[in-house]
Amino acid sequence: MALIVQKYGGTSVGTVERISAVADRVKRYVDQGDQVVVVVSAMSGETNRLLALSSAINDQPPSRELDVLLSTGEQVTIALLSMALSTRQVPARSYLGSQVKILTDQSHTKARIKAIDSEPVLADLAMGHVAVVAGFQGVDEQGNITTLGRGGSDTTAVAIAAALNADECQIYTDVDGVYTTDPRVVDGATLLASITFEEMLEMASLGSKVLQIRAVEFAGKYQVPLRVLSSFEEGEGTLISIEKNADMEAPLVSGIAFNRDEARLVVRGVPDTPGVAYKVIGPVSDANIEVDVIVQNVAADGTTDLTFTVHRNDIQKSKTIAEVVASELNARDVAIDENICKVSLVGVGMRSHAGIASQMFKTLADVGINIELITTSEIKISVVIEEKFMELAVRSLHSAFGLDAEAS
Amino acid sequence: MALIVQKYGGTSVGTVERISAVADRVKRYVDQGDQVVVVVSAMSGETNRLLALSSAINDQPPSRELDVLLSTGEQVTIALLSMALSTRQVPARSYLGSQVKILTDQSHTKARIKAIDSEPVLADLAMGHVAVVAGFQGVDEQGNITTLGRGGSDTTAVAIAAALNADECQIYTDVDGVYTTDPRVVDGATLLASITFEEMLEMASLGSKVLQIRAVEFAGKYQVPLRVLSSFEEGEGTLISIEKNADMEAPLVSGIAFNRDEARLVVRGVPDTPGVAYKVIGPVSDANIEVDVIVQNVAADGTTDLTFTVHRNDIQKSKTIAEVVASELNARDVAIDENICKVSLVGVGMRSHAGIASQMFKTLADVGINIELITTSEIKISVVIEEKFMELAVRSLHSAFGLDAEAS
Repeated sequence: MALIVQKYGGTSVGTVERISAVADRVKRYVDQGDQVVVVVSAMSGETNRLLALSSAINDQPPSRELDVLLSTGEQVTIALLSMALSTRQVPARSYLGSQVKILTDQSHTKARIKAIDSEPVLADLAMGHVAVVAGFQGVDEQGNITTLGRGGSDTTAVAIAAALNADECQIYTDVDGVYTTDPRVVDGATLLASITFEEMLEMASLGSKVLQIRAVEFAGKYQVPLRVLSSFEEGEGTLISIEKNADMEAPLVSGIAFNRDEARLVVRGVPDTPGVAYKVIGPVSDANIEVDVIVQNVAADGTTDLTFTVHRNDIQKSKTIAEVVASELNARDVAIDENICKVSLVGVGMRSHAGIASQMFKTLADVGINIELITTSEIKISVVIEEKFMELAVRSLHSAFGLDAEAS
Repeated sequence: MALIVQKYGGTSVGTVERISAVADRVKRYVDQGDQVVVVVSAMSGETNRLLALSSAINDQPPSRELDVLLSTGEQVTIALLSMALSTRQVPARSYLGSQVKILTDQSHTKARIKAIDSEPVLADLAMGHVAVVAGFQGVDEQGNITTLGRGGSDTTAVAIAAALNADECQIYTDVDGVYTTDPRVVDGATLLASITFEEMLEMASLGSKVLQIRAVEFAGKYQVPLRVLSSFEEGEGTLISIEKNADMEAPLVSGIAFNRDEARLVVRGVPDTPGVAYKVIGPVSDANIEVDVIVQNVAADGTTDLTFTVHRNDIQKSKTIAEVVASELNARDVAIDENICKVSLVGVGMRSHAGIASQMFKTLADVGINIELITTSEIKISVVIEEKFMELAVRSLHSAFGLDAEAS
């Protein structure tokens, strides 16, 4: 008997038939004696339907009310899944974020979990019931509904698994695990049986989109064994674990991640005085915009160019903020480029091996791709390039580092 | 400056455009200095959409989960209306039943309001904000979502108006007030400028469907001035008041109500011993089925027939219950008839006038309608007849009692 937290995303609960299939799987676990908590997202399409209603009424809706609106999506799913379990004689009980309860801060649409009071859920499990929990949502100290931001249901699942000290947190999705890179871009992409939290963090943050980065952080921090697997096919998926399996043949590079949702902003001609980076990046971060790559170059004339990348959706807001700061700092101007992408090599094996970076740069040069920005960390090397070269870069690197299916 | 509670039903908030129109009206009241609480239903069609999802999954869904599901309908509307007010620079804040909070008993899908803690709403009003409250829903002591049953949004509005001691509770709907009878059945039906709570109770309970009966009871009990008016057209609507206006020309009969959702059940050949009526009706009421007309006739052979009517949706359940009781009581059998309707004359003026009943029976006899059951109270006389005669009965009575537009 194990305590399992299962999370099903929007496509996995996208229709009445899919919800029934989820109920069938949950029943199999219950029948074999497991205790099961299920975390679900809104049915696919539902969030967009609600957003369309909202934007038809107010193009800048108050974030508190946006959370009230969007949280109905998961509420519908928990009710329907509980009904589907009930019709299979599996006693089940639905929980809203406010009922679990999942206490968050007050940052509407981007709330962070502060605490989970899992007593009601534990009481249900003790009685042999399945607890069906709405993902993505929480409640602040004042009782206002909050949401955790895109992909927040993964975070909900991992946070509950941590709070309940679950044996495994299973993330069911429409892919069957984590691949060396996106199979839609590279035919020969291969399924990874396991990956470390560190590698997964880099893969997720760089755009592999299988799991939300906060969920992986949470899982790593609380050492929750996390498994990504398909709700459409049988299979073991990918286990995200603390330690890399001691595989003699383990490749240096575990995967190639990429992200085309980035945009670049350059504040040009800033007088090069201490604290410039902070003065520019600070206000952007304060506006809750995640800044990714940051590069600063000093020019010959004593000024400096400060370059950073943000999510493409945030580029106009970032530009507005940067222009105010640029004017205060007597910078020359602010330029943006929305046609960029980021491609990264990720691998724990890179730590102890030199020469990976130069092989990466050579591979890209050989196919004529110009590198615009470079950043490195212990287990990844990222380059920012023109967006149109993205597929070419990923395919070339996947092959060059021996990740293609036929080569492994 | 007045404190006004406005309630908008499903068709009044059925589209983004309708929600915007509601926001415009609310703004007019706010601009003239009124404090406004708005109670809304689910967008029309939404409840049926949710019920279709539910019934595709489980034809007898657990009522707790049905409430979780259906309560999302109003939640969507409060968010959207708050957004619509916000875009018009009217500060607004949405409230779920659990946030107001509206405390109910635990009868899922048919909960009764036990108490309203209106402090958060009062605090908002004091700050000049509009409070937008989800109708139809509440929360029990354990924090489970409950719903108040069909038409429950009216009850929410009146209960909040009572709790806030509001100056008026305005029920906006798709009709422009209360008519002498349904204008779809009788062309000459006329709008009543006012009607007493007692009359309205009889009209509502007998199927005029403008207002939910519990809402009128609440309003009468707490003396909340209630006004029914159209959200589509300007107009004064119908005021539901304590006292009938002292109108010399006030007709004896205020209106003709009817109800085609009834079904009749007869327990035949019950040995006529004391307590028979209670033994039969008790278990039906215990199953939360509302029993309407009850008639008992003793036959010559010392047995009795006990006849009662219930909502047509409840007839099979009632039959199952009655058959168990009938067998225990050695009754002959149980018969049901689903093709009946009830037609009633309603009027405070009837109290002091004899001859109304006989005029009613004569009118029906003149057009060849057979009366199957009769019940009377101080201000109404109801007959149960074959459903196919309903329109004919209503038109004949409307004319016979001088209610036709051309006759008034």
